Amino acid sequence: MIQTVELQHAYRLMNHGPTVLVSAAHGGQRNLMAAAWAMPLDFAPPKVAVVLDKSTHTRALVEASGEFALQLPCRAQADLAFTVGNSSGAELAAAGDDKFARWHIGHFAAERIGAPLVEGCVAWLECRLIPVADNQQGFDLFLGEVVAARADDRVFSGGRWHFDTAPDDLRTLHHVAAGHFLLPGGAVQGRMLP
Amino acid sequence: MIQTVELQHAYRLMNHGPTVLVSAAHGGQRNLMAAAWAMPLDFAPPKVAVVLDKSTHTRALVEASGEFALQLPCRAQADLAFTVGNSSGAELAAAGDDKFARWHIGHFAAERIGAPLVEGCVAWLECRLIPVADNQQGFDLFLGEVVAARADDRVFSGGRWHFDTAPDDLRTLHHVAAGHFLLPGGAVQGRMLP
Repeated sequence: MIQTVELQHAYRLMNHGPTVLVSAAHGGQRNLMAAAWAMPLDFAPPKVAVVLDKSTHTRALVEASGEFALQLPCRAQADLAFTVGNSSGAELAAAGDDKFARWHIGHFAAERIGAPLVEGCVAWLECRLIPVADNQQGFDLFLGEVVAARADDRVFSGGRWHFDTAPDDLRTLHHVAAGHFLLPGGAVQGRMLP
Repeated sequence: MIQTVELQHAYRLMNHGPTVLVSAAHGGQRNLMAAAWAMPLDFAPPKVAVVLDKSTHTRALVEASGEFALQLPCRAQADLAFTVGNSSGAELAAAGDDKFARWHIGHFAAERIGAPLVEGCVAWLECRLIPVADNQQGFDLFLGEVVAARADDRVFSGGRWHFDTAPDDLRTLHHVAAGHFLLPGGAVQGRMLP
């Protein structure tokens, strides 16, 4: 079941380095891309950083709307993540189509922003762009403040991931290259050295 | 065996979202901290982004020297990663000590920068700071260009991670919170949807 994540815990959704899907909408258009280069940037208020290449249609929608969503695809969505990461929203838009329609990607409304959220993901972070022109132009680097966060409580509850007790298909994806994703397996607890 | 990683493949060392150790040195001082908030920023030349809190001694050394190393600790180093992430280099420095000496942390010289590299890690990225004052002051966000990269070829070769065929102790660490680290387990190959 999808549950609200307290904003003070939102960073923990991305702390372990998952690949995310970035969605955005503006002026009747919407798009979705994959991004392995994303990370938390602050605790409270929670902020994130994500790299959006100049060639992406999603970036144009983020810049126009000032909003974006990051969501964490899971093992069951490896093909979806690869597909939206290897197709052009701009080309589809030019033909009056988009990725959601083309691949029948289920989605639902965000609480605080206009970007669509992808069904079947295990966590969602709704973000308002923090505009920093030099970062966006010089480094393709986009910063955002997280204004709402939710997660699938089968895998994330009490501020922690629980992959060991959930179905394998709900594990997050960690992209290496060319559609090859690593999955979180075991865990280890670090302790202070003597 | 430690092998050079071609700079064009350096981003793949961090693409899957591992926690890193950040080392830096300046004026006879050296320090080491843990950072879960780090990501690749560009392919060629390779760049990285990492969050360094204002309270950290490492940050002061990075700002003074203009250099830092990111290195990937592995399962065998969970206690080391937790320890350097939960101790104060500034306090040790005030007592004429440092983390390397205090916990007998083995290290070796970098090729292109002055920061010490930690023995037993599975990859190392030597970086020159790209100074962006507004990011550093406003967001604790530091950007760097990777000028040399190496990896342990038992787990990284041919531009890919090979955790399945290497000892479990060489798996990278992905921090959730409070010393609880996830480890990469299985893998999945994404394919284009029809």
